Amino acid sequence: MNKPNSFDNIRVVLSHTTHPGNIGAAARAMKTMGLRHLYLINPRQFPDAQAEAMAAGADDVLRGAVVCTTIDEALHGVVFTVAMTARMRDISIEVKTPREAMPRVLRHASTYPVALLFGTEMSGLTNEETGKAQLLVNIPADPDFSSLNLAAAVQVVCYELGVAAQSYLPDTPEVEPATHEQVEGLFSHMEKTLLEIGFLTTQNPARLMQRLRRLYARARLEPEEINILRGILSVATEYNARLRARYIQEHRTDQKEQEQP
Amino acid sequence: MNKPNSFDNIRVVLSHTTHPGNIGAAARAMKTMGLRHLYLINPRQFPDAQAEAMAAGADDVLRGAVVCTTIDEALHGVVFTVAMTARMRDISIEVKTPREAMPRVLRHASTYPVALLFGTEMSGLTNEETGKAQLLVNIPADPDFSSLNLAAAVQVVCYELGVAAQSYLPDTPEVEPATHEQVEGLFSHMEKTLLEIGFLTTQNPARLMQRLRRLYARARLEPEEINILRGILSVATEYNARLRARYIQEHRTDQKEQEQP
Repeated sequence: MNKPNSFDNIRVVLSHTTHPGNIGAAARAMKTMGLRHLYLINPRQFPDAQAEAMAAGADDVLRGAVVCTTIDEALHGVVFTVAMTARMRDISIEVKTPREAMPRVLRHASTYPVALLFGTEMSGLTNEETGKAQLLVNIPADPDFSSLNLAAAVQVVCYELGVAAQSYLPDTPEVEPATHEQVEGLFSHMEKTLLEIGFLTTQNPARLMQRLRRLYARARLEPEEINILRGILSVATEYNARLRARYIQEHRTDQKEQEQP
Repeated sequence: MNKPNSFDNIRVVLSHTTHPGNIGAAARAMKTMGLRHLYLINPRQFPDAQAEAMAAGADDVLRGAVVCTTIDEALHGVVFTVAMTARMRDISIEVKTPREAMPRVLRHASTYPVALLFGTEMSGLTNEETGKAQLLVNIPADPDFSSLNLAAAVQVVCYELGVAAQSYLPDTPEVEPATHEQVEGLFSHMEKTLLEIGFLTTQNPARLMQRLRRLYARARLEPEEINILRGILSVATEYNARLRARYIQEHRTDQKEQEQP
């Protein structure tokens, strides 16, 4: 197996891993398929002797691991995030098998940073975490016993990536996608504005924001589009502020007129 | 994933496994893909608490494991044996990838017992053992670090078997796309609102609306999403209408108060 240069653009992100042995085994799984960049969000215990033992020769991957405290830190600079899920979600972004998804991961990784995001051993990723992804991946498993060990899931996904790399023909990505920070900046701005204009008070804000995240995840926003959307949000608030100011002004004038006679 | 009946004809055979934890993890890997029949040739330690711990719910597979003292005992009744190898051997048995081999395994397993044979953690299978196989399978890996953990290799092979058995996922609920009229309704509403709040006066409206059309075309909007977006547009303008109404209301009250005395 020859690993393409694009593998340097791929990071494996493990969120809140409980057992350090799984971190080591995941590092080993990655390295067997030519992947090196490991990010850990709040691991319960790291560095750790059991992680080293399970890495069994992939200790360079462990030594190079980036420990982060938030998911945004782990996804900094990333433009395409794939989140693993053991279940089909009701609010789901696109869900693909590893086989369907990995050629797409490779295509993106040929130009910019990509993340493969894995949740905790017990409960997987939170909705907030999957909300940051552009694609969900589900490893097909026996519905009666579908819980793969974390490192086993990393192995399957990295293996599929390795197999996909064998038959991969590079082509140029059609759009220049926005970075994680640009997308998150848009969603913060959007939520703030929707609260300000009163759209989010009467409804369930979390659920509505998730619906909006899902919609824009499908669209795979470009930086210029984010500028346009944020432009609209800014104008909407300025507009309201101007109107409010004018009303207050007029109201004052009324009061003055009232007072005068 | 639905497991075919042929899975009952497939046994996973682990030869001379050193670490009992790997036996447990292999059992778990098997069970996630719907395989149940585990054969152990002279395991160093079995049964074992660490095997139980790593099985994490696949303890039924462990309990049903058949412990053998020779490879011939483990392959008794088997008609087609596939041996895993980490290296290309000079022996001239065919070597295939898991992807190439598993459809063949399935085809055989539909009629008679088949074995998937895995060697020890350190040195794999002996030449004598691979000599009992009809097919060798090599998991493609980074030549610089090609040693998969035993349970990880079991996971990859069983996963390929599962995918071969059913290479499709029950599709993600296909999104119900909005009709042409619904989409056009959104764009009229959007343009009207963007003019109203002043976003489209300073810029080129046609070009901007085209950019927005392109963005939402990529997203393939659903009817409910159109409702959400139009809801936002309505609130953006209603907010002002509400303010105006309140102002008029208050103004009237003021005037009445003015008139009364």
